[in-house]
Amino acid sequence: MAEASIKHHCGLFGIWGHPDAAYLTHLGLYAQQHRGQESAGIVVCDHGRLTRYARRGLVNQVFNETVLQTLRGAAAVGHVRYSTTGSDTEENAQPLLFSFAGGQVAIAHNGNLINAALLRREYEEHGHIFQTTSDTEVIIHLLAKPSHHRRARPLAHVLNHLQGAYSLVLLQADCMIAARDPLGFRPLCLGELADGSVVVASETKAFDMIDARYLRDIEPGEIVTINDEGIVSAHFGGENVGERRAACIFEQIYFADPSSRVFGENVHLVRVALGMKLAEEAPAKGDLVVPIPTCAQCAAIGYSRRIGIPYGRAFTTSHYAGRSFILPNQSARASTVKMKLNVIKDAVAGKRLIVVEDSVVRGTTTRGKISALRAAGAKEIHLRVASPPIRHACYFGIDFPEPSQLIASTRTIEEIRHFLEVDSLSYLSHEGMLGCVKMPANQYCTACFSGDYPVDVTEPVDKFAMERGQLKMFG
Amino acid sequence: MAEASIKHHCGLFGIWGHPDAAYLTHLGLYAQQHRGQESAGIVVCDHGRLTRYARRGLVNQVFNETVLQTLRGAAAVGHVRYSTTGSDTEENAQPLLFSFAGGQVAIAHNGNLINAALLRREYEEHGHIFQTTSDTEVIIHLLAKPSHHRRARPLAHVLNHLQGAYSLVLLQADCMIAARDPLGFRPLCLGELADGSVVVASETKAFDMIDARYLRDIEPGEIVTINDEGIVSAHFGGENVGERRAACIFEQIYFADPSSRVFGENVHLVRVALGMKLAEEAPAKGDLVVPIPTCAQCAAIGYSRRIGIPYGRAFTTSHYAGRSFILPNQSARASTVKMKLNVIKDAVAGKRLIVVEDSVVRGTTTRGKISALRAAGAKEIHLRVASPPIRHACYFGIDFPEPSQLIASTRTIEEIRHFLEVDSLSYLSHEGMLGCVKMPANQYCTACFSGDYPVDVTEPVDKFAMERGQLKMFG
Amino acid sequence: MAEASIKHHCGLFGIWGHPDAAYLTHLGLYAQQHRGQESAGIVVCDHGRLTRYARRGLVNQVFNETVLQTLRGAAAVGHVRYSTTGSDTEENAQPLLFSFAGGQVAIAHNGNLINAALLRREYEEHGHIFQTTSDTEVIIHLLAKPSHHRRARPLAHVLNHLQGAYSLVLLQADCMIAARDPLGFRPLCLGELADGSVVVASETKAFDMIDARYLRDIEPGEIVTINDEGIVSAHFGGENVGERRAACIFEQIYFADPSSRVFGENVHLVRVALGMKLAEEAPAKGDLVVPIPTCAQCAAIGYSRRIGIPYGRAFTTSHYAGRSFILPNQSARASTVKMKLNVIKDAVAGKRLIVVEDSVVRGTTTRGKISALRAAGAKEIHLRVASPPIRHACYFGIDFPEPSQLIASTRTIEEIRHFLEVDSLSYLSHEGMLGCVKMPANQYCTACFSGDYPVDVTEPVDKFAMERGQLKMFG
Amino acid sequence: MAEASIKHHCGLFGIWGHPDAAYLTHLGLYAQQHRGQESAGIVVCDHGRLTRYARRGLVNQVFNETVLQTLRGAAAVGHVRYSTTGSDTEENAQPLLFSFAGGQVAIAHNGNLINAALLRREYEEHGHIFQTTSDTEVIIHLLAKPSHHRRARPLAHVLNHLQGAYSLVLLQADCMIAARDPLGFRPLCLGELADGSVVVASETKAFDMIDARYLRDIEPGEIVTINDEGIVSAHFGGENVGERRAACIFEQIYFADPSSRVFGENVHLVRVALGMKLAEEAPAKGDLVVPIPTCAQCAAIGYSRRIGIPYGRAFTTSHYAGRSFILPNQSARASTVKMKLNVIKDAVAGKRLIVVEDSVVRGTTTRGKISALRAAGAKEIHLRVASPPIRHACYFGIDFPEPSQLIASTRTIEEIRHFLEVDSLSYLSHEGMLGCVKMPANQYCTACFSGDYPVDVTEPVDKFAMERGQLKMFG
Repeated sequence: MAEASIKHHCGLFGIWGHPDAAYLTHLGLYAQQHRGQESAGIVVCDHGRLTRYARRGLVNQVFNETVLQTLRGAAAVGHVRYSTTGSDTEENAQPLLFSFAGGQVAIAHNGNLINAALLRREYEEHGHIFQTTSDTEVIIHLLAKPSHHRRARPLAHVLNHLQGAYSLVLLQADCMIAARDPLGFRPLCLGELADGSVVVASETKAFDMIDARYLRDIEPGEIVTINDEGIVSAHFGGENVGERRAACIFEQIYFADPSSRVFGENVHLVRVALGMKLAEEAPAKGDLVVPIPTCAQCAAIGYSRRIGIPYGRAFTTSHYAGRSFILPNQSARASTVKMKLNVIKDAVAGKRLIVVEDSVVRGTTTRGKISALRAAGAKEIHLRVASPPIRHACYFGIDFPEPSQLIASTRTIEEIRHFLEVDSLSYLSHEGMLGCVKMPANQYCTACFSGDYPVDVTEPVDKFAMERGQLKMFG
Repeated sequence: MAEASIKHHCGLFGIWGHPDAAYLTHLGLYAQQHRGQESAGIVVCDHGRLTRYARRGLVNQVFNETVLQTLRGAAAVGHVRYSTTGSDTEENAQPLLFSFAGGQVAIAHNGNLINAALLRREYEEHGHIFQTTSDTEVIIHLLAKPSHHRRARPLAHVLNHLQGAYSLVLLQADCMIAARDPLGFRPLCLGELADGSVVVASETKAFDMIDARYLRDIEPGEIVTINDEGIVSAHFGGENVGERRAACIFEQIYFADPSSRVFGENVHLVRVALGMKLAEEAPAKGDLVVPIPTCAQCAAIGYSRRIGIPYGRAFTTSHYAGRSFILPNQSARASTVKMKLNVIKDAVAGKRLIVVEDSVVRGTTTRGKISALRAAGAKEIHLRVASPPIRHACYFGIDFPEPSQLIASTRTIEEIRHFLEVDSLSYLSHEGMLGCVKMPANQYCTACFSGDYPVDVTEPVDKFAMERGQLKMFG
Repeated sequence: MAEASIKHHCGLFGIWGHPDAAYLTHLGLYAQQHRGQESAGIVVCDHGRLTRYARRGLVNQVFNETVLQTLRGAAAVGHVRYSTTGSDTEENAQPLLFSFAGGQVAIAHNGNLINAALLRREYEEHGHIFQTTSDTEVIIHLLAKPSHHRRARPLAHVLNHLQGAYSLVLLQADCMIAARDPLGFRPLCLGELADGSVVVASETKAFDMIDARYLRDIEPGEIVTINDEGIVSAHFGGENVGERRAACIFEQIYFADPSSRVFGENVHLVRVALGMKLAEEAPAKGDLVVPIPTCAQCAAIGYSRRIGIPYGRAFTTSHYAGRSFILPNQSARASTVKMKLNVIKDAVAGKRLIVVEDSVVRGTTTRGKISALRAAGAKEIHLRVASPPIRHACYFGIDFPEPSQLIASTRTIEEIRHFLEVDSLSYLSHEGMLGCVKMPANQYCTACFSGDYPVDVTEPVDKFAMERGQLKMFG
Repeated sequence: MAEASIKHHCGLFGIWGHPDAAYLTHLGLYAQQHRGQESAGIVVCDHGRLTRYARRGLVNQVFNETVLQTLRGAAAVGHVRYSTTGSDTEENAQPLLFSFAGGQVAIAHNGNLINAALLRREYEEHGHIFQTTSDTEVIIHLLAKPSHHRRARPLAHVLNHLQGAYSLVLLQADCMIAARDPLGFRPLCLGELADGSVVVASETKAFDMIDARYLRDIEPGEIVTINDEGIVSAHFGGENVGERRAACIFEQIYFADPSSRVFGENVHLVRVALGMKLAEEAPAKGDLVVPIPTCAQCAAIGYSRRIGIPYGRAFTTSHYAGRSFILPNQSARASTVKMKLNVIKDAVAGKRLIVVEDSVVRGTTTRGKISALRAAGAKEIHLRVASPPIRHACYFGIDFPEPSQLIASTRTIEEIRHFLEVDSLSYLSHEGMLGCVKMPANQYCTACFSGDYPVDVTEPVDKFAMERGQLKMFG
């Protein structure tokens, strides 16, 4: 899939009890940079006082040595973000930091709340004011409500009000809390360092980076509270969902790093299996099996292995990519695609290529790459997609475009084949996909493929829903 | 007075109806840079949507061409700040921008609310959450409260809840609002450009910068609402204060730029009068009258003129000043004083100097400069201060240190003279000072000199009052 | 090979006759970023006047929109650099720009001159002064010498004085010149854009980026002069070298981008062939063939294809890499390796791996990666290197460490195997390597493997040779 | 004089024998920032190796903590610059650093060589190449010439070739050298720190900044060599000049800081004397004597003192000034004048002003300020200039515009008065000026006023003379 077509969503990291908390958090975020490239932020707790630093940019642009040295303290939470709700402004960059009757609290959120706009309107009508246009802020408003806050377990009480996807890490002066929604849409893992400090992260790759040991996943519907006394676990909300879970299968297909273990199994191995299954379901004849780099490498390896046709490369990648800017009289601007990929013409010319993609969203970027292969002289191009056609909106944290812009929502496979200008096109079947992951089918959310949403989506969700409002003159 | 000893507070600017709103706002802030050097911010309104850009730093560091080009729209409010309440973090940089049931609102505030902490605790107890540690935020919470917001004149209603000093500029999608507290502590002016666009600013110097015409001061207790239809004025709260007003006399003595017209008269002329009165009250014998640059120039001119002793220079100033940083093995670090001033030794050696200061706060910086004059060979040094001794805290927006650190609060004039190591020392009398400004005495706040506060200061005000809180674990 | 162990050398780009010369040059450099990451520079010619902009940093750090807009003109030469001679200072960043009796001249150089220090000493003894510590500067001193400069073909005359490797692009007000040494160590290509403007670049990948058409290689011993009248070719120095050429085979093995065509053939295909030949010479038993990413991918594909064992992935790569900085009390610093690679543990655990490397220099980085695979549970590790052991210094532009630090110069294969802690180790044979490229053996320089230098290396070359000197007091 | 109309030239600093050499040099440059605002540079010597850091910008922009920490060593030379010869490019930023047969040498130069272009052409014809377009570089070419370099006293020999103004500081691995031309156009002082380390600077203000003690001026025609053994002085070239010296009187009038001692007397006191003499020669009637800030303050003080009319202020100054940039649709751009000065309207309205200027160059900026005073309501404006009319070019380091653009070179006093729109205008007489400085008239260069050049100016000097050249194709 084109990296441009789905911008990744969010990555979380938290650490409690380490003198280099901010430094390790920045490494943990760096390892999860693939989950969000628009902003990065860290909140540290030093002597009971929380301080925030968040900016637009990549992790190693936002955090340099000077900045990290100012972020003192033994506890920290961090966030990398591509906005799924709310505009991409610096105010929305997470973690968010607030204070209320209970003191300061920082929150980092991966996922999307489908009743956030409703809850926000309700609170606004009671006079609450909002700083951000992020759906996350409403969680703190709920927590701050005296009738909620005075409960024995305020967070559990509050989370029961929320609908949608949320993996959360919160930081207060006296504890760090990690929680997942009862359906478990988004991943969240628990780990520890050799010195006993506790870490949480969206993906285990963050643990690898800092030599932390993976302990276990935070469970759906679990709240884990970490402080100097240790780790306490509690559950909430399980009664409402029965056996149903909703692990986002798209994490396996595209989002997560191949080296991570997500929802209990390694992403790379799942993708190899998807490729192998695809070869079984949709074999093609050709000279070479080549991935659209770099995401589809694993699936292409699987496809090649099962079909018995050599694995090859059709592109090289540039890893220094930044933006391609436009100058006034510039007659030959390089496309963003070219800033990232270059076709290996001699490897492609005259060849019958079986091109493996992980997924196709709008189709435009895939088409651009297919077109580059044609221009380089490919004789035949057979496109194989290692997931089913994406036809439905995601309300749980993936920033797909409007369904009308999803190529598979409005076109037949043949029409897509025609649009992409490939000689043949096959997608993996829904059943084939589910056969490659280890949990039962009712444990996954596959709504973007099937339209079968694990939660009733009553209130129409609009990314900018929370940015509008009736204005009234104050004067 | 040492520029380091009182950091200036805040400057406001607003414009409605001009295609270059953000650019003119940045110029208006630049002209008021002396009112706040720690952060600068602008909120613009473009097609009904408000966007904020605020950062730590000077105006021409924060706003470059690239940034200003992104701040589109025909209305803008801006703020330069030295924090008087709340820590100096970027979150606190103003204007603040919020959204609530009534839409988006931006607020820029000069002054200090003495009941902010009380109001905040009250709102927090009702479940409100706060983003900043600034006293300004509480104003928006009050505005957002449904029972306030549904009133005929919400802002007037809300301002009646506030105690303390506030000159405000608010921006909404459909209007800009300027208001001053009923006692009129801080200045705020109304002006217009040749094309009819309306501007507001703390000081008229901002109007001079953009060739705007000064119309009049916003009156104490006045709310001025500006939109495309024109300007509407309304009053509030006057009944509570009777004839009493509380124009901060320290604006005349030290804060405002000499070229500005503040509270109806020119600052430079007031300062010259202060210097003349000082010469009458406390004549000294000497060879030269020299100011502590650059603030005391006007008063020294007045003193010299009245006493008939030549005006001279004892220092040159460096206008490129930044920070003096400390390197590891640095044996001879230049003091911050040296980064700004250098004694003209040959002009001072062997001379009997009458040194004029505008005011003395802690006394330490003044002492450093006196000491430098001694080292350069001054024969006698007679210090004359063009304002009375500062002995009391300010609760209305001036960031004096704790009263215990005010040199005049704990020492006699003779003890101060001894501390500063001058041959003689005189301050201007309270009556002398009031005789140099044109309004009656009950129109000014002179509390820092007299201890006579125009408002009852019941709740002890602590700069960091709003940053503390009891923490409770959520888990 | 570890990217850290050999820093790439240099990439050249030049364009004549295009209104966006600097912009296209920056794209051409960006496409060749893999050839040098320490500095980047462009010299443009506008209305007969040459201007230089060069800085340390990556291409898209050095050149932003603002900078490029100041670089006007229809001709430009550019350079990316890792220093092979001279310290890495900004003064040494190329292109260098000088003026002399003949006007201004800019020069960009890829390669290394082995008699530069000798020539420099000679010129210094005649009173010449040097601005840089780069070997390139001596070329301009030779050109500026009146007895050289007055020749019919000054550059040809001068190049005959030089020993070593040099692909050059020069820019003067009235022409651009491209030249290669008579042995043709380093690549240099000629191309054209659709509008007729002429381009030169080290690698064809730069042409792909800007949609330029590859015309041909600049030949060894050829000087190509490009101006508004067209392209003129001339040869020099061929008589000295007979049939011998010295195309650096390491360009094929490691330096050049797989999508480029270098010395007449595609790099990717050469590397696949190297991997296939390696499988023939040194078959191994195992479950998976995995490359050390990303350089060894092509060879691993070839090995897997020929041996019939599945190709796999053992690592994921991070493409956001910057520096890993060190903080004061940092107890768990991430290694630079981790900033770039993460092991896919589940893909490796319990597996017999055949790991393919392109080359091994010091061995330390390879060892680190092998160690990470072991820690992840690899059962067996068989290392196969797709080139012969590197045992000798390069004097022609590759920045190998001292021979004593080349692991293969001091150890037997078995000792290396022991050091790297692999179960078996094989290198490709010298003959095997030469069998994978299309020109005859005497057309290549393989000195780093064989010690057989194509040029007599009389004067010992020291990277910092030109930075030392006897000092004499002037006073 | 308008700060914009003459950009200051250059300031030098050097230190030998202090562990914080670079840090103290940056302070010494900061104190001399008024002598050059376009670039700043430092060369340090650490363990026999010289390293250079120079950039466009102000001292505290160019040198931050990070940069200074990399500049290690116990000896350093520094330079602030406004280019008098050569374009303002970074390559021309001083100190320049070269290496030649004698090793590395850094040079910092204040002044202008009138035979530099001639010498350069000569050296170019002998094959020398030049890196910069600065006249300074030619000095090193002369030094590097073997027949010069082998002399007993190479620098003395070389300096005898130079015509024009040069205060120099050179740094080699084993010594620092300070020298002034035999006529002594530009100042250069010698001082020492308490720990015995030796410093040199253009102005004593730099010594004040770092608590160094002023020892004496470097004498015209003196070469002072400083190393670990101590200080050695030698003279050269005196025989050619007899009693004649050429101390630039414009240093006293405008360039140097009032707190500095230059050519043996304090600048402030000289300017006060100039103002007093002006009052004697050209008394005016009025209400207030006001300076054009900030340069004319001292002269205005003197004028006011002698004439007995009160000293006043007509302007306030902004010390945060940066650039005023232009935005696309900007209808009301603030002028650069406004970014720096604001009229105190109420102090000016209805007043008869005696405005004191230090000098008038083009007249345009003065006119702008006069116009602003008129707009503020000044009743009469009598301009008094504390120096004679500037009518002639300077070839010795002051960057006056072309004589044709000097207002006094083409107009009568009456015509200038008319152009500036003042009610009366008087300049100080040439004799009056010379009566205010302590050395005899033949010790000063007053050529810009008198046209009487202390050196024969045979070769026409053109600022860009050294940037042109005949081009010849190399190919």
